Amino acid sequence: MNAPAALNHLVPDVAQREVPAALIAALQAQFGDRFSTAMAVREQHGRDESSFQVPPPAGVVFAQSTADVAAAVALANQHRVPVIPFGVGSSLEGHLLAVQGGISLDVSRMNKVLSINAEDLTVTVQPGVTRKQLNEEIKSTGLFFPIDPGADASIGGMSATRASGTNAVRYGTMRDNVLALEVVTASGEVIRTGSRAKKSSAGYDLTRLFVGSEGTLGVITEVTVKLYPLPEAVSAAICSFPSLEAAVHTTIQTIQLGVPIARVELIDVNSVRLVNNYSKLTLKEQPLLLMEFHGSPASVKEQAETVQAIASDNGGESFEWASTPEERTRLWTARHNSYFAAVQSRPGCRCISTDTCVPISRLADCLLDSVAEADASGIPYFLVGHVGDGNFHFGYLIDPNSAEERATAEALNHKLVSRALSLEGTCTGEHGIGLHKIEFLVNEAGAGAVEMMRTLKRALDPNNIMNPGKIFTL
Amino acid sequence: MNAPAALNHLVPDVAQREVPAALIAALQAQFGDRFSTAMAVREQHGRDESSFQVPPPAGVVFAQSTADVAAAVALANQHRVPVIPFGVGSSLEGHLLAVQGGISLDVSRMNKVLSINAEDLTVTVQPGVTRKQLNEEIKSTGLFFPIDPGADASIGGMSATRASGTNAVRYGTMRDNVLALEVVTASGEVIRTGSRAKKSSAGYDLTRLFVGSEGTLGVITEVTVKLYPLPEAVSAAICSFPSLEAAVHTTIQTIQLGVPIARVELIDVNSVRLVNNYSKLTLKEQPLLLMEFHGSPASVKEQAETVQAIASDNGGESFEWASTPEERTRLWTARHNSYFAAVQSRPGCRCISTDTCVPISRLADCLLDSVAEADASGIPYFLVGHVGDGNFHFGYLIDPNSAEERATAEALNHKLVSRALSLEGTCTGEHGIGLHKIEFLVNEAGAGAVEMMRTLKRALDPNNIMNPGKIFTL
Repeated sequence: MNAPAALNHLVPDVAQREVPAALIAALQAQFGDRFSTAMAVREQHGRDESSFQVPPPAGVVFAQSTADVAAAVALANQHRVPVIPFGVGSSLEGHLLAVQGGISLDVSRMNKVLSINAEDLTVTVQPGVTRKQLNEEIKSTGLFFPIDPGADASIGGMSATRASGTNAVRYGTMRDNVLALEVVTASGEVIRTGSRAKKSSAGYDLTRLFVGSEGTLGVITEVTVKLYPLPEAVSAAICSFPSLEAAVHTTIQTIQLGVPIARVELIDVNSVRLVNNYSKLTLKEQPLLLMEFHGSPASVKEQAETVQAIASDNGGESFEWASTPEERTRLWTARHNSYFAAVQSRPGCRCISTDTCVPISRLADCLLDSVAEADASGIPYFLVGHVGDGNFHFGYLIDPNSAEERATAEALNHKLVSRALSLEGTCTGEHGIGLHKIEFLVNEAGAGAVEMMRTLKRALDPNNIMNPGKIFTL
Repeated sequence: MNAPAALNHLVPDVAQREVPAALIAALQAQFGDRFSTAMAVREQHGRDESSFQVPPPAGVVFAQSTADVAAAVALANQHRVPVIPFGVGSSLEGHLLAVQGGISLDVSRMNKVLSINAEDLTVTVQPGVTRKQLNEEIKSTGLFFPIDPGADASIGGMSATRASGTNAVRYGTMRDNVLALEVVTASGEVIRTGSRAKKSSAGYDLTRLFVGSEGTLGVITEVTVKLYPLPEAVSAAICSFPSLEAAVHTTIQTIQLGVPIARVELIDVNSVRLVNNYSKLTLKEQPLLLMEFHGSPASVKEQAETVQAIASDNGGESFEWASTPEERTRLWTARHNSYFAAVQSRPGCRCISTDTCVPISRLADCLLDSVAEADASGIPYFLVGHVGDGNFHFGYLIDPNSAEERATAEALNHKLVSRALSLEGTCTGEHGIGLHKIEFLVNEAGAGAVEMMRTLKRALDPNNIMNPGKIFTL
């Protein structure tokens, strides 16, 4: 079924590229039953968590090794056919959609932890390893990997979108935590982009060129990331506020004071209701901050006291502490499930997620006016945010068959992004550009910078086979 | 005078490119007395702290604005003439040398702090602002900029070489601390590479492509960097050890335990003697660690106690504390002057600096064998290191007229780099590739990765005018 035009106005109007029978035959010969053209498999690989609908890819390769990836890409390059790397399918921005046709390259079976270097606080993994799997496999080392987008995303996908999550305010994003990559280039060559040294000035930073490149420059086949010692003490707290404004100002003051808080998440009243319902919690129906402190017992105590004083000055009610690991896990799982809680709350809906991020001093300006606009629109929505980074997400829950609701949601997003850019922020803190924000990127970076990105893309992928049509039109 | 061949065996054998009279005339017309062809000015811009000697550039433009830079680059591009950006001239790797001829573009007069955003912990500066100037100008905000290479380098130069220094173990390097750049491209166009948001997933990471690009992709004309609150408490300590090995193991254990130490510098016996002499200090003539702890009073006390216990287990003698700002400044100034102390200790000598960096668990393996080799060589040397990052520098003090001494020093460096690479490290932690490490980069990154760098260079600078012949031959 073709989607109504209104649903796809952001999908570039580029013709599907032909996938020649010779390529299909070559992939079948190379991969046997690890290459599938079954419609169910293609459809599963032809969508993500975005709300776009386009035809599925012509087939799916299930790679088990770097050699598999290199062989698949080399064949596709020979036939000038698009290749779309696929991890677990949790993209929110249409990254996985075959807008120009082509082949999906599923790396989820490349899911081995290759080497744990606990004494250097690094680990090297295949791209299909998920963040939860990684933390499970390194449990015995006393170390952990902090980056936690909502979904249990793959480390390859998280690298490709420069993902972050709730711990980024203290531990940084994938930009800061990827040390080195192995990459299959658009011609099917294998290169390494760095060493395990903590820092290096050895030539261009190819690692960070690929981190955030959204599959458009090559396929990530190995990732070396930093790990951190599990903090000696961890303490989580919930604090309810009389208004969103009070919660936001508490956050701003905490960050400006340099408190090394590990997590500070804003949850609006709508989200509290959704989460209470979905996760069987009884959180007070007020805007709240969900916080976590990491460090030595003395340092955690000190941080918590400082923030408690700031919150109290802003009218925050006394902290409720979650000190046992079980209580903490329950709270954070509820937070991570807010997206799914929201989507389930309106059967048949799709969620349009926003992702602006602004300098911390501009957070109140950016957030509060946008909330007023969302309230006035009548569209059901929820708001959660990694507010310590100045990053927050509206989720507008729209009926995908209502062109009007989609238009309203897109208009809200457009206003929000314009506001964020005027406040020296970005249209995307952690989800990436994908299909959804191509226009926003031009507004944000300027035509000259986007043209430089296109120039880099043309140089490294002259046949435009790597996930074409994402980040910019080409 | 042409240098003896032995001095320049690492300078690529590429012909000087012609600088047409029409370009000289155009630059004179555009810049008046801010364009100089005086030999003294050219010679001053034709060398750096490296030990190479090549003919000076044909002229020097003193830029005062982004528009000046854009005009100079556009003219040079029109005439296919090399442009070499110049900050304060503190490169150790031959970055500033006109190996293919051309024009030096001095940005030292672009030395304004453009906007201080204390509430966001960011500042935007012109590229000629030096690190000390920056800290002086933001003094009243209660914030500081931590990156401190030995020299009082320019922020533009530090960005271009991905510099770091003694604070990197806690605060990261220029890679981690540059938020956004304004850049003049090789065609003379002005672009911006990012916003002031703390994190972003908006397209390719152009910021980090330019950070560490050593002037080969464009000219950095504005830099936005992160700032940090001055710590509530600071405490510095010196600890002497019976052996280098004991000092190294103390460092390794401190890092592996996750102590957030702000600085941990190794100083070998040779350096202690040089520094005592140059800075009129009376440090005990033993290997020592110079450390600094930042945080709340309680946290500083806790960190210091932990490290003191580790040091004591390794035979370290009781800490000597430097608690007043004056004492601390004296110690750190002495550390930063170790390079100059060394160079002055052997009149007429040149210093060949090494810059390997390895994963922390490999530090002892890499360092101790290399010290034994240096001792056996008979070349005067000193050793200092940002050992918390696994990064250390030998300085071999050679007679520049002795081909034999140079060959011995280069052989030591070669062995050291090979060892570092075999231990999953890098040939350069913070100085860059320049002219000196072109071969090492190929060994480290592999021919495929270096060819990718060349491809990027060709795409962004098709006439090869931006600082040609650095990082790789082209």
